[in-house]
Amino acid sequence: MYDMTIRLRTDSGKCLYEQIYEHIRKEISYGKLLTGEKLPSTRFLAEYLQVARSTVDYAYGQLLDEGYIEARPCKGYFVCPVKELFQMEEEKRETGQAAWTESKRSHEKTRTESGESRGGDQTGMEAVRQEPLVEEGGRSAAFSAPCQYDFSPYGIDMSGFPFDTWRKITKNILTYANGDLFSRGGPQGDLQLRQTISRYLHSSRGVNCSPDQIIVGAGNDYLLLLLEKILGRHVRIAMENPTYARSYRIFRSFAYDIVTVDMDENGMRPGRLEQERVRCAYVMPSHQFPAGTVMPIGRRLELLKWACGGPDRYLIEDDYDSEFRYRGKPIPALQASDEQGRVIYIGSFSKAIAPAIRISFMVLPKPLLEKYKRDCFFYSCTVSRIDQSILNVFMRDGYFERHLNKMRKIYKAKHEMLLEELRPFRKKFRISGENAGLHLLLTARDQTKEHELVRKAAEKGVRVYGLFDSMAEPGDEAGRDAREKTEGTAGVFEGATVLLGFGGLDSKEIQEGIERLKEAWL
Amino acid sequence: MYDMTIRLRTDSGKCLYEQIYEHIRKEISYGKLLTGEKLPSTRFLAEYLQVARSTVDYAYGQLLDEGYIEARPCKGYFVCPVKELFQMEEEKRETGQAAWTESKRSHEKTRTESGESRGGDQTGMEAVRQEPLVEEGGRSAAFSAPCQYDFSPYGIDMSGFPFDTWRKITKNILTYANGDLFSRGGPQGDLQLRQTISRYLHSSRGVNCSPDQIIVGAGNDYLLLLLEKILGRHVRIAMENPTYARSYRIFRSFAYDIVTVDMDENGMRPGRLEQERVRCAYVMPSHQFPAGTVMPIGRRLELLKWACGGPDRYLIEDDYDSEFRYRGKPIPALQASDEQGRVIYIGSFSKAIAPAIRISFMVLPKPLLEKYKRDCFFYSCTVSRIDQSILNVFMRDGYFERHLNKMRKIYKAKHEMLLEELRPFRKKFRISGENAGLHLLLTARDQTKEHELVRKAAEKGVRVYGLFDSMAEPGDEAGRDAREKTEGTAGVFEGATVLLGFGGLDSKEIQEGIERLKEAWL
Repeated sequence: MYDMTIRLRTDSGKCLYEQIYEHIRKEISYGKLLTGEKLPSTRFLAEYLQVARSTVDYAYGQLLDEGYIEARPCKGYFVCPVKELFQMEEEKRETGQAAWTESKRSHEKTRTESGESRGGDQTGMEAVRQEPLVEEGGRSAAFSAPCQYDFSPYGIDMSGFPFDTWRKITKNILTYANGDLFSRGGPQGDLQLRQTISRYLHSSRGVNCSPDQIIVGAGNDYLLLLLEKILGRHVRIAMENPTYARSYRIFRSFAYDIVTVDMDENGMRPGRLEQERVRCAYVMPSHQFPAGTVMPIGRRLELLKWACGGPDRYLIEDDYDSEFRYRGKPIPALQASDEQGRVIYIGSFSKAIAPAIRISFMVLPKPLLEKYKRDCFFYSCTVSRIDQSILNVFMRDGYFERHLNKMRKIYKAKHEMLLEELRPFRKKFRISGENAGLHLLLTARDQTKEHELVRKAAEKGVRVYGLFDSMAEPGDEAGRDAREKTEGTAGVFEGATVLLGFGGLDSKEIQEGIERLKEAWL
Repeated sequence: MYDMTIRLRTDSGKCLYEQIYEHIRKEISYGKLLTGEKLPSTRFLAEYLQVARSTVDYAYGQLLDEGYIEARPCKGYFVCPVKELFQMEEEKRETGQAAWTESKRSHEKTRTESGESRGGDQTGMEAVRQEPLVEEGGRSAAFSAPCQYDFSPYGIDMSGFPFDTWRKITKNILTYANGDLFSRGGPQGDLQLRQTISRYLHSSRGVNCSPDQIIVGAGNDYLLLLLEKILGRHVRIAMENPTYARSYRIFRSFAYDIVTVDMDENGMRPGRLEQERVRCAYVMPSHQFPAGTVMPIGRRLELLKWACGGPDRYLIEDDYDSEFRYRGKPIPALQASDEQGRVIYIGSFSKAIAPAIRISFMVLPKPLLEKYKRDCFFYSCTVSRIDQSILNVFMRDGYFERHLNKMRKIYKAKHEMLLEELRPFRKKFRISGENAGLHLLLTARDQTKEHELVRKAAEKGVRVYGLFDSMAEPGDEAGRDAREKTEGTAGVFEGATVLLGFGGLDSKEIQEGIERLKEAWL
């Protein structure tokens, strides 16, 4: 390992993280740190330099983002091949071949992370922030045993994706698309796609909406930004505890007042909504993330009753993975029970097709639609008409349905195998969140701590995800406080709980990973 | 014309616009209004029903957006073929062929509107809002003479676009893109594309930035939404008067305090910035929209001096059409003169490639980059990695440069022809804003009013755009007030001023259009 001595100056006008960043960058530039060389862990370096861990996190984040170093999951940070980087300025234009080679390299990698739908903290700075999860067990554990089995709840299986169909549709569309498709379309998205989506939502989710109520946008994050402009700046919003971290951060970046509401086995407890005078509640009734709860109709009606009990109250329904249900009839969306126009429905194709396609949609109830048209209609659509057309044909011509049916079978098989493999765990763990989505939960029946489970798994080369780590990012004190106050929810998950995602692993990996977890936990 | 009697009720619980909307929708559904039939103008119907014009505007906007009616520029509103709409629910899935036919129909249309870069108020509700521009001259004028020559400043020429190259690149990328490209990339966009953009900006605009400072996003509107999260909620921002209406509306939707600052022939007058205690100033130094001014280096340095004169002050440089300059050396960006990190640079490919590609970028100065990484890094990128890769190859392999050179020649020829054709106008009009961009300005030397020029042109079938109508939407009282108070700017444009865009017209259309304008104005 290279000499880590960095002369940190408090009088240089440069903040500490910048000094660390620059030092390492120079070390790489001057060839003192070589390609493939491992950097010290952020915790180790922080202790060594006597600075805050977050300072080193920021420095590494910057280096990551600029492409000097790369994060290998569960392994640490390594120096990238930098020749390319430093030739950047002089770089001659290469032939077109280079890009194909680049893409070719990833040809074999057929599984990917669905960042959009749930999580997606795998890149750049976020990767750094998640690192503590793995390092928790001490440096030796995290860095000696490489993580071979990642039970990420954000993983999806791209091996079943009909690439050829997608290519064919794209080719056909581009062949005839000389004019209109290269112009900017309407702000809500193309009517044809919205018609297709509204039909799909009606038949598969029971959602009642006209194409006019649909707004197409490049990802849920963007749609929430737009929703802020529609709902207004000062909104008191209720979220379940635990909830989906990305949405939590987004609402926090809006400076919304976030009220975390405890869950019972049916989801959000409606009592506090009235009491806390919230205006909106964000829920995932089909399959709550991360708790895996399916909200029964009784609770749904309670929430709708609350929403109808005051002016301008709304439920935001994030229907992120409702396509995947493995038992019984599909459960309709909450919006399907809404007769008063109180539900804002948000869906995405990230889990069902691919995170890359960056197409989400939002169904606005009539009063908000008016507000949108009055106040936000000048925001242009963020999805290109070409991409909208490809998706439209993919859905309209039945490919989407076929793909969903295929994936449902694939995921169902993985889900059943995982449950089967988990049989020996049932004595020590309670299993929940099954029969839907791409993850389930294990809750310890004894006094084990969440981080112990995570650490012991990591020691065996397996990455699992702690339930409460999904609530807020590590190091985020507000979030930590919030989650430590959750006695109500702690009641539901009596005991340490981890998430096991199965979307991104094949059956062999699931079997081997669970074998390792047996060694770790049983 | 059909019977317009609509029984409006004040006790029905439905607002007036909804009643009008529903009435007309039913008339269409029941076949009382037939395909291709013309609706009354909004002004006429509003007078007839004794309701506000905006009420009818909203009703028409809704019908437009749902596809019941269509707006034909300068002609009015017509009932769409509705068979498709009403078969929607029962509609059987058609074969893939349908979409190709749909696209084929637009095959011939090779020119399009660049909504992203400047304006783009051509769709849905916006079209309604812009209608008064045309109707100003009275119903007879607008509706009797069809508008054949649209000198839209937002028009671009797509006939020179290398569709084949674009298709080939897309095909090549999709051929090898099985894995990574279908996953979500980093929040700022792919490093390769950012490297390519940073090289391009350096060589063509003199912009100094590392790829790390670049954020790729789906359009300027989205990037401004993100910028709001970085700059914070309460920003006092200066904008030139007149300025680009879309940005004005966006900043207003942020509830930013907007200070409109008068221009002289060099652009924004810096005096009031200090005086008004603004924190940010939004400028277009390369070619101001709509005034066409190029900001000289002296004024640029004054603005930079202001920005450096206080903490946390920034200039937002919107470099929307800098690619097109027809005389002398290219003028570097304002960012190129910025040594203190006070300029936020925003660029887009809407004008230079096509509005459809929905890729813009923002260059953040270091202090804001830190804020972005701290507070906004979880917002996922709004552009798919596939689209990013296509653009990257297009730029990296020299196609973009070739395309720009070609378009520069095409636009230069149109620009020169337009100037030549305008020779007879010079006695009555002052011409300005030439030698750059896709529009120039005509200012009357006599006492003619702006709306008279617009009306007289419309009577001859020519659409021109009033200078002050670009400042704020018609019917927007705040904007109207603002623009009526602009004595300072009125000093620069002493006399009625109209914009003549030439991007979307071919040379024959330019000649014929100007011929008509001669009849109208001279």
